[in-house]
Amino acid sequence: MVGGGRGALIGAVHRIAAVMDGHAELVAGAFSSDAVRSKLSGADLLLDHARVYGSYREMAQAEAAMPKDRRLDFVVIVTPNHQHFEPASLFLKAGFNVVCDKPVTFDMAQARKLRTLVRRSGKVFVLTHNYTGNAMVKQARELVQDGTVGTVRKIVVEYPQGWLADAVERTGQKQASWRTDPKRCGAAGCMGDLGTHADNLARYITGLETEELCADLTTFVKGRRLDDDGNVLVRYKGGAKGVLHASQICVGDENNLNIRVYGTKASLEWHQEHPNELAVKFVDKPRQIWRRGNSYVGDEAKRFTRIPFGHPEAYLEAFGNIYREAFRAIAAEVEGRPIPKKLDFPTIDDGVKGMAFIDAVVRSSRLGARWVRPEAP
Amino acid sequence: MVGGGRGALIGAVHRIAAVMDGHAELVAGAFSSDAVRSKLSGADLLLDHARVYGSYREMAQAEAAMPKDRRLDFVVIVTPNHQHFEPASLFLKAGFNVVCDKPVTFDMAQARKLRTLVRRSGKVFVLTHNYTGNAMVKQARELVQDGTVGTVRKIVVEYPQGWLADAVERTGQKQASWRTDPKRCGAAGCMGDLGTHADNLARYITGLETEELCADLTTFVKGRRLDDDGNVLVRYKGGAKGVLHASQICVGDENNLNIRVYGTKASLEWHQEHPNELAVKFVDKPRQIWRRGNSYVGDEAKRFTRIPFGHPEAYLEAFGNIYREAFRAIAAEVEGRPIPKKLDFPTIDDGVKGMAFIDAVVRSSRLGARWVRPEAP
Amino acid sequence: MVGGGRGALIGAVHRIAAVMDGHAELVAGAFSSDAVRSKLSGADLLLDHARVYGSYREMAQAEAAMPKDRRLDFVVIVTPNHQHFEPASLFLKAGFNVVCDKPVTFDMAQARKLRTLVRRSGKVFVLTHNYTGNAMVKQARELVQDGTVGTVRKIVVEYPQGWLADAVERTGQKQASWRTDPKRCGAAGCMGDLGTHADNLARYITGLETEELCADLTTFVKGRRLDDDGNVLVRYKGGAKGVLHASQICVGDENNLNIRVYGTKASLEWHQEHPNELAVKFVDKPRQIWRRGNSYVGDEAKRFTRIPFGHPEAYLEAFGNIYREAFRAIAAEVEGRPIPKKLDFPTIDDGVKGMAFIDAVVRSSRLGARWVRPEAP
Amino acid sequence: MVGGGRGALIGAVHRIAAVMDGHAELVAGAFSSDAVRSKLSGADLLLDHARVYGSYREMAQAEAAMPKDRRLDFVVIVTPNHQHFEPASLFLKAGFNVVCDKPVTFDMAQARKLRTLVRRSGKVFVLTHNYTGNAMVKQARELVQDGTVGTVRKIVVEYPQGWLADAVERTGQKQASWRTDPKRCGAAGCMGDLGTHADNLARYITGLETEELCADLTTFVKGRRLDDDGNVLVRYKGGAKGVLHASQICVGDENNLNIRVYGTKASLEWHQEHPNELAVKFVDKPRQIWRRGNSYVGDEAKRFTRIPFGHPEAYLEAFGNIYREAFRAIAAEVEGRPIPKKLDFPTIDDGVKGMAFIDAVVRSSRLGARWVRPEAP
Repeated sequence: MVGGGRGALIGAVHRIAAVMDGHAELVAGAFSSDAVRSKLSGADLLLDHARVYGSYREMAQAEAAMPKDRRLDFVVIVTPNHQHFEPASLFLKAGFNVVCDKPVTFDMAQARKLRTLVRRSGKVFVLTHNYTGNAMVKQARELVQDGTVGTVRKIVVEYPQGWLADAVERTGQKQASWRTDPKRCGAAGCMGDLGTHADNLARYITGLETEELCADLTTFVKGRRLDDDGNVLVRYKGGAKGVLHASQICVGDENNLNIRVYGTKASLEWHQEHPNELAVKFVDKPRQIWRRGNSYVGDEAKRFTRIPFGHPEAYLEAFGNIYREAFRAIAAEVEGRPIPKKLDFPTIDDGVKGMAFIDAVVRSSRLGARWVRPEAP
Repeated sequence: MVGGGRGALIGAVHRIAAVMDGHAELVAGAFSSDAVRSKLSGADLLLDHARVYGSYREMAQAEAAMPKDRRLDFVVIVTPNHQHFEPASLFLKAGFNVVCDKPVTFDMAQARKLRTLVRRSGKVFVLTHNYTGNAMVKQARELVQDGTVGTVRKIVVEYPQGWLADAVERTGQKQASWRTDPKRCGAAGCMGDLGTHADNLARYITGLETEELCADLTTFVKGRRLDDDGNVLVRYKGGAKGVLHASQICVGDENNLNIRVYGTKASLEWHQEHPNELAVKFVDKPRQIWRRGNSYVGDEAKRFTRIPFGHPEAYLEAFGNIYREAFRAIAAEVEGRPIPKKLDFPTIDDGVKGMAFIDAVVRSSRLGARWVRPEAP
Repeated sequence: MVGGGRGALIGAVHRIAAVMDGHAELVAGAFSSDAVRSKLSGADLLLDHARVYGSYREMAQAEAAMPKDRRLDFVVIVTPNHQHFEPASLFLKAGFNVVCDKPVTFDMAQARKLRTLVRRSGKVFVLTHNYTGNAMVKQARELVQDGTVGTVRKIVVEYPQGWLADAVERTGQKQASWRTDPKRCGAAGCMGDLGTHADNLARYITGLETEELCADLTTFVKGRRLDDDGNVLVRYKGGAKGVLHASQICVGDENNLNIRVYGTKASLEWHQEHPNELAVKFVDKPRQIWRRGNSYVGDEAKRFTRIPFGHPEAYLEAFGNIYREAFRAIAAEVEGRPIPKKLDFPTIDDGVKGMAFIDAVVRSSRLGARWVRPEAP
Repeated sequence: MVGGGRGALIGAVHRIAAVMDGHAELVAGAFSSDAVRSKLSGADLLLDHARVYGSYREMAQAEAAMPKDRRLDFVVIVTPNHQHFEPASLFLKAGFNVVCDKPVTFDMAQARKLRTLVRRSGKVFVLTHNYTGNAMVKQARELVQDGTVGTVRKIVVEYPQGWLADAVERTGQKQASWRTDPKRCGAAGCMGDLGTHADNLARYITGLETEELCADLTTFVKGRRLDDDGNVLVRYKGGAKGVLHASQICVGDENNLNIRVYGTKASLEWHQEHPNELAVKFVDKPRQIWRRGNSYVGDEAKRFTRIPFGHPEAYLEAFGNIYREAFRAIAAEVEGRPIPKKLDFPTIDDGVKGMAFIDAVVRSSRLGARWVRPEAP
């Protein structure tokens, strides 16, 4: 693991998600850019002292030098955005599979370079757009793909949070600090952190790509240097329309990612905070509530389920599902088998599209919220 | 009553709403532009045959000629949009108070003319933006006005319906027919029918006026001549941002008007389909659910309540609240008393703003969804 | 109307419910046992002074003496329980149809006597178990009757309220005062007021009759003389089991009547506070939410609907549905036509069953919560 | 681990819950009473072949013989109920800490014997009443303990499931098979599996003990030999009343454990299927929704939280919380430190109380649903 030391948030999430099914074990890490802090964090995690490194460079070198049966099978990168590209490149080049938090890089150029590297390396690269790991999100996708929904006409995807409604970053809170800092976070704040999830979720479920978009980004908190709110109109290729909004200043909203997909035959509604349910609405028959774990759900929704219906799975299990699927690929790579063709986890391509989304909303907004086309990935 | 005969929808709603508190009685009507149909509708309603008129012109003349103690106190206009202006003008001129369905007229020019007429007439003019009659909407407004919410930063207001997802108008369904006909409905379809309610609700609760907006309207159903879907970005005067979307093609959504108001201190959330509850969200204390009829609600929410908490009031009662308040003004006018200053019902000014909203979203959309300013009302 | 004067609660509800569809008009009343108060209440309601009576005896006599085309078509009795039997008997004998609030009488003996009177009179007698007026309750009944639910195995019906959690009756509150007074309310408090609704609702939906029950009633508030809480185990004829509980001390619960019916094939769930929805649950297919006003609901649920789906109807409309159906019978009786056979409103027989329920739960509880059989009605 | 091999359900849950925080590792097991099956299951789990045993007896012996730094720190028993007592006794005697699924033993006599053994052994014994691991259940308990709720008057606790509505056990389904078999499950079916959870949850939150109860158990599915439904009236020591019902035949209900606690000052409501929220209701102020992970929750609710608000934790995390707390005790025991005094996990005492509950409901029901007192634990 690179990053995720004391005071970090998402590192702990990755650690639980990666190990919960007993398919992986944390064995090494460079948990902080501060070597002492890294060592302390490694000790917290009961790791072998020798494999807690002072920097990711040191780690890549040392691990690559180990005999194959002892060294890392994959590395997980959970640093702030500006520190994704370098360690990812380094580990790929050193022959390791990589799992990386989103957004994939600091900017579009890095994303494209990384894509080239991934392709050349032949290694597995996994981007943790974790919400697509939810079983009922997979069910939603299946209901689009199998024609139940008909032609998609409209998508409403929302991601309001409220934790940055005040200038929390000035209190020294670590998460708030880097997420509002253009040097570490990139060109977008809220839109990079939350908007990309919303964009990715819509694409994952519907398969639609954005033709053009019009984004009105705002920084509500005085002194903040990145957007903390954004409202976006979307025109999808093929004629569907969309509304995407995300925010960090929606007081009292916690992690309220939700999506509605309206088709010619049926509509879907899913809420991240109640992830075990998927509402399916029709014109002329009762609304349906599909619930995880039942006999009637599709094969993919079944495949990503651990426990019976009514025993709710939630955020960590969905995150774990990304890992579970990634391990199918990583295990193959490590064992020298061909990597399975049909895999269901976000890849470098999703990463590039995410960067194109960030680039487009920022461009649009700077033009005063004019319509722009995302760059071809 | 003008309009609202056999096959009509909103006429019956007005009749229930107007009489439910025992403050009014239906005594006369021109229920259809077809005289025979009007007579038949009047008979259905057990009205005195003599006061069921073949046309609203006839009605205005005959009623104006009656002795003051027998003639109408007010007239209710529930015809399609293109037939609001004429009867409203006629009855105002003939000395009657007028209650009119929304949107107030066919276009902006008519709305302004009507406003002049209303002002000159000294009569009461009531526009039935019925959703503002809900007790918990009034509570929401109070929580903005008393500072609980702080400064409003963001408004998300939605009004998805699904009943026009198919070309219902071609089946001869009366409601669908005129609501999709530019000659009877006006420049906008969905945005006139639903968007104006959403716009009005946001303004009612927050007091904010639109500075500029960017609207992407769509006609999804082939052959339809008016928009059946619209997504709007809003910039309010003073800096708040908004998202407003409405639709008639959201399969399975019924009458899903809802609003979220995000302030610096608290946020509000209200759903028309569950109107007795108002969610109030904070950063640092538990989410609150305010429920109609309780001791803790404000004076206005109390004033517009008939029955105890837990005994839900709903659409018709909210509609009746508009009438109830209107009757305070109408009774004063009829009795020659000064009309109370502080009244809480939508007026011709709301009507003009609604037409400015329609005009602006249509203009914006025709420009390819550019930012435009609503005309000064 | 008998009762329902100033300070009363349910009188106003009846007045709205009875007139909302334009089928009835309030013309006369004895609104209070205090003649002055009755007159004042009549004036509040803008009634003809001559038809506001000082007592129901006076009213029955005077109205019976009127010519048939001017006198009352029916009388509504909304007095406390101990004053149901006398006025009901009097008006029936005087030749009037009667609508009466529940529970039907003070005790079982009175209920049986009244039943004899009703049968002899040939008049229409309506008991306002208003919750069965809800469209989706009718839908629930239909889903039992048409076999969708299969054989009913278990019923859970609850009616918790919280308004009497403190000794409100000692503050002089009129509602609390008579409802906790054994001389005016009868043998049961909470169980008479709320338990009978729950019992009636279960019977209405499932058609099942109680074989025996075991009731544990409690008076939680010190000094109160009637039960303010009760928990009941039920064994229905034919083998189904039930849990029925009701309370007036469930702090923060408002009017939380709800029912679940579990069958061999499907289960139903309905909540009075969100009355437009009915959940239908299956073993092997998605949960369904049936919503009032849709094309797919049954004929009876359609018949008792005024406005389109998504425009919620609620307590008053359900109450009005009882009246609406009653008027079919009353109109026939008044016009000398045969009374329709298939009518859907609660009758004196429901009233007698309600009194048998009250009698049984009180008997059971006094025996220390032993199993008892309700008396044959 | 003892039990939990191929085809088992709860074993996998324990494995995830125990390891998710990185505090434990699965190293050995006797996964089935069939030695071959045990070996195969161990291989599935990538265990060292040498530590996958053919029986728990073999396992206890072999592990006890290992050097202290290599042998097990604790054993987890996840066999059917009739096979709890023997392995638990054996491992305790062999010097191991024990985690055991509920109900603790086959019958009351075994439970008492096991309690004696636990006390004598000085080892840690943990009973996985997992629902008490939920952060918001802990919050509920705190709101009772800190006086917010006032004196508890009424408890309604429900646990309806529907998966045994048909005779699933005859299809060879392993879970259904042993859970409906009196020789493996014990004296109660539904009441042992679900009722004990409900009883435990009520006691955990309120601290109240049952004075007496009256239970009506039913076997709805023909040929089944244990209860699949039960309705219980409860009288708690000190005067509170309760309703407890559980079922396996409630078609379409999944794992619908929920509880309402009504106090003199406030009421609580918690639903297992939406575990991150706790409703708190008052007489005279808005209903509150407390949500896991917020600054305003109590210390205990904070202590058992992994990820931020809005990122839902659910069943597995709650289960993991039992383990997390157990590990505080187990680590101390293993390291020879004094076991912390204030621990929050279910113990052998809870187990004995659970068996007393089972014994009482079965006795009561056999008497025709008479009131009985649970045996003193």
